Amino acid sequence: MSDYIAPVKDMGFVLTELAGLGEVCQQPYFSDTSEDVVEAVLDEAAKFASGVFAPLNTEGDLNGAKCENNAVQETKGFAEAYQQFVESGWVALPCTQEYGGMGMPESVGMAAMEMWNAANISLALCPMLGQGAIGAIESHASDSIKDTFLEKMISGEWTGTMNLTEPQAGSDLAVVRAKATPDGGNYRIKGTKIFITWGDHQMTDNVVHLVLARTPDAPDGVKGISLFVVPKFLVNADGSLGDRNDVYAVSVEHKMGIHGSPTCVMSFGDSNGALGYLVGEENQGLAYMFTMMNHARLNVGIQGVALADHSYQIAVDYARNRVQGIAVGDREKGAIIRHADVRRMLMTMRSLTEASRALCYVTSSSFDMAHHHTDESSRRAANARGELLTPIAKAWSTEIAQEVTSLGVQVHGGMGFIEETGAAQYMRDARITTIYEGTTGIQGNDLIGRKLIRDNGLELKNLIAEIRSIQVEALDAGVEFSVIASSLVNTVDSLENKMNWILTNYKNNPQLPGAIAVNFLMALGTIAGGWLMAKSALISKSKMAEDENFHSVKIVTARFYAEQIMPRARAYLSALENGSEMTMALSDEQF
Amino acid sequence: MSDYIAPVKDMGFVLTELAGLGEVCQQPYFSDTSEDVVEAVLDEAAKFASGVFAPLNTEGDLNGAKCENNAVQETKGFAEAYQQFVESGWVALPCTQEYGGMGMPESVGMAAMEMWNAANISLALCPMLGQGAIGAIESHASDSIKDTFLEKMISGEWTGTMNLTEPQAGSDLAVVRAKATPDGGNYRIKGTKIFITWGDHQMTDNVVHLVLARTPDAPDGVKGISLFVVPKFLVNADGSLGDRNDVYAVSVEHKMGIHGSPTCVMSFGDSNGALGYLVGEENQGLAYMFTMMNHARLNVGIQGVALADHSYQIAVDYARNRVQGIAVGDREKGAIIRHADVRRMLMTMRSLTEASRALCYVTSSSFDMAHHHTDESSRRAANARGELLTPIAKAWSTEIAQEVTSLGVQVHGGMGFIEETGAAQYMRDARITTIYEGTTGIQGNDLIGRKLIRDNGLELKNLIAEIRSIQVEALDAGVEFSVIASSLVNTVDSLENKMNWILTNYKNNPQLPGAIAVNFLMALGTIAGGWLMAKSALISKSKMAEDENFHSVKIVTARFYAEQIMPRARAYLSALENGSEMTMALSDEQF
Repeated sequence: MSDYIAPVKDMGFVLTELAGLGEVCQQPYFSDTSEDVVEAVLDEAAKFASGVFAPLNTEGDLNGAKCENNAVQETKGFAEAYQQFVESGWVALPCTQEYGGMGMPESVGMAAMEMWNAANISLALCPMLGQGAIGAIESHASDSIKDTFLEKMISGEWTGTMNLTEPQAGSDLAVVRAKATPDGGNYRIKGTKIFITWGDHQMTDNVVHLVLARTPDAPDGVKGISLFVVPKFLVNADGSLGDRNDVYAVSVEHKMGIHGSPTCVMSFGDSNGALGYLVGEENQGLAYMFTMMNHARLNVGIQGVALADHSYQIAVDYARNRVQGIAVGDREKGAIIRHADVRRMLMTMRSLTEASRALCYVTSSSFDMAHHHTDESSRRAANARGELLTPIAKAWSTEIAQEVTSLGVQVHGGMGFIEETGAAQYMRDARITTIYEGTTGIQGNDLIGRKLIRDNGLELKNLIAEIRSIQVEALDAGVEFSVIASSLVNTVDSLENKMNWILTNYKNNPQLPGAIAVNFLMALGTIAGGWLMAKSALISKSKMAEDENFHSVKIVTARFYAEQIMPRARAYLSALENGSEMTMALSDEQF
Repeated sequence: MSDYIAPVKDMGFVLTELAGLGEVCQQPYFSDTSEDVVEAVLDEAAKFASGVFAPLNTEGDLNGAKCENNAVQETKGFAEAYQQFVESGWVALPCTQEYGGMGMPESVGMAAMEMWNAANISLALCPMLGQGAIGAIESHASDSIKDTFLEKMISGEWTGTMNLTEPQAGSDLAVVRAKATPDGGNYRIKGTKIFITWGDHQMTDNVVHLVLARTPDAPDGVKGISLFVVPKFLVNADGSLGDRNDVYAVSVEHKMGIHGSPTCVMSFGDSNGALGYLVGEENQGLAYMFTMMNHARLNVGIQGVALADHSYQIAVDYARNRVQGIAVGDREKGAIIRHADVRRMLMTMRSLTEASRALCYVTSSSFDMAHHHTDESSRRAANARGELLTPIAKAWSTEIAQEVTSLGVQVHGGMGFIEETGAAQYMRDARITTIYEGTTGIQGNDLIGRKLIRDNGLELKNLIAEIRSIQVEALDAGVEFSVIASSLVNTVDSLENKMNWILTNYKNNPQLPGAIAVNFLMALGTIAGGWLMAKSALISKSKMAEDENFHSVKIVTARFYAEQIMPRARAYLSALENGSEMTMALSDEQF
């Protein structure tokens, strides 16, 4: 299996040309960041991902985390790699400077996050979940909590977890049951949480859990959930570690993939109750979690991109080296990359990966602008764009990761099914990404309910206008761009029709949004990908003289996408216009 | 996880109403078969699949076959289950009566084969591969070989294997290197074969290997390959077992799925050469294998259907029992089957599974007619139809199995990713089906090269005419059938255009067929599925009074297919019309 080589040049192109890195760097908040700094950071990250994380990826798959005596032992070698990660300062990359972070843009953090996940998704999940915990504390906790925990979490000296799910409370957090009983100004937490990523391990001295639980008089449902910090070890006033807190990993799950990432059942307060510190106010827990949501979802989106890219790299490597048969047009036996159908698979993988990367980075940089632009109306506009694109970036990127990693197996033929080849692991690892942090169905509902209907299509209309301006540019760019232009014309008109149709009809048919949500999301993902690929190609055309090889490949990839991928958008939209009747027609018993 | 319940009623409907079982039974060759007999056989098969094979499916996944000291030990319990399978006469079901078979139609055998594979694909693979070996001997071997081996293989007392692949010879068998040296009227075989399904085990006294190898003076390439019978134990003149032959399993592969099916590396002739008996004439081995090809490929197609169906069954079971959230239109919390997006997934799974089952059975019954119809022109027509449909049935059914089994995981949410739930196994097991017996790419090339171009589209035109006659019936069948009718109108016209375009252009662009083959195959699969679903729905309309529940569900499922699945056909066709230029544009190094 080939090593992972981060596509730093592609990443830089997307950040600079599509995601507006230049404008991001001009904001005073990012005064320490420049395009040169970003380039240097990404080069270093690439070396780290290939040199330290990637070599442990197979080991994590073969010898995953184990839980014994209420303690998780992670894969051998992970602790040393994580220690190097901390020492190199990578955890701190996108974190606030106030507590020792580097304060780099989220979009740059996302490029690095792609590399960690491509190299070793299981290990990358640890700092990725930690980011969520850091964000929750940064945004909502008291100074006392911040002072106690943030610096060590941002350095990576301590890791962080998110404890939301319970056996009966998966997608529906309204039924969370974990209890928080007041105790001397703080709380005692009792309850069981499941699916807790990196809930325990031996890589660091402490693990800081963010936990959803209910106080005694809390109202039912989502309005009665509070958020608590529950450290594995209590922290003394001088910052040293104190008593072991009453929270333990009880078991780890036996999963289809990401074996190196311990997915824990966590038991809080089996003895005297786990000491917890309230974050912000009581009953605001879910609202606080929602402020983390976009970030967490985008991080999963980039996992899809990451696995797709690494899967593509090993498929290309195999296709270049596996000799089998004589390809059409050749005179002697050659590598299977010479065969048209293998190329079709590789080009599909390549173009989908590039489009999803562009979508994730662009969405992420919207939030850089939304949070840090000096101009308020720019902030507001960027936030609306980021909110609209987040469910698409999350769900579409992870759905295409299923397809790309499966093609990665297919390119290998029979060898792809043999685990030693390595291709299968990416497919197995990718399978969780359309599920956690909200399934594709939930992203679809978020898109159609909160992002389309709530603002009556306003932001989507803005996006459509922007896509049309690229379409006009493509129409003017000559024959090479004719299919790219027409692929946008065909689909965007239909998208606009369907959007208006949904906005007109959802009130009379309450089942309509749910029944068509995923088709709508997949159509928008495909079209947004096409828009960004078209934009890339136009930029590459204008920069051809600078690097003909790089830019001509960009144009070919964008044309392939327009020709081979964009027709799917119309299929999703055609399916959608048939509405909800047949989806809802059978009784529960008739299935 | 729910048990497997074979959809006997659906299977019977497809055999009778779509696959022409009545006409098949009228052929003198099948004089012992009647529709009543078939019904009874399928009922018994269903009980056997659920009662004997299914309970061992998880065990096979968790504790797969192991190879130690050149012998394979299969999963515990498999030997007893296989013994019951033999005693119940299931191996003999579709085999020739001359050597003890039941002589039932292949299409009926296929329905049973679906059940074995749905219940336990790993175990089912053993008799499935055996069928290939039986077929090769039946069709091409001398009476002496037949008399020695056939009866015990047809009873199942001995199993059979197919030894084609070598490390350097996968899709390209032209480079097979195994050697066969003449020795006293027979041959000594030396060489290594890989990916040999059930190459060794302890379930039976003997294993009969069919092996491709080259004689000393054989020409290079595919024209120098001969076929040999190489038993694990030699057979004495009285039929008793003699010496151990020099053929051994060296190792079994560590695979993504089908863990219970030993995939062996076989070593022939490490000591004095394995004694082999030539089948038919020298250098005809590949031609003999080709006569088995359609059958073997269809069997893999039905594996796709089987895994899709079982995956659907457990997804429905989970969706009915998992309570999460309040669905739109409901007043209290309910099972997730109440949610529109879950229904979309289940209906997608259901409709794709039904369509692919119909396609496989119809293809199989074509060969029943082709081999046994009394009228020569009917035989010829049926053969042409079967030849055309085989690559589609194989590749499309297994491609949709990827989608369906992945949706099966998705319906389970986070639980789907946990192996104990059982959903993931179907997805992992299904992953091999688009690869073995010829990848989807190879099926596409077969379709476009041997089945479309070779007869200049003649048989596809016949099929299109037949689809159009159903389309006309649907147009006349009232408003309930309007989307079904229009889905056929829209796609069949486009299919015909593209067919003519391919036939006009392939000569000027030699890369065209390879580059568009899979899109063409997937379009045809989708449309053929839509044709058979439409046909089902029309029959169900006419039989509504007989069983309103059954037939109304059939019509809903067909309408869902027309509305939600058929739009994909146009996407495939649109992608296809963009040709091969972008697929072939990058140099090998630019990937």
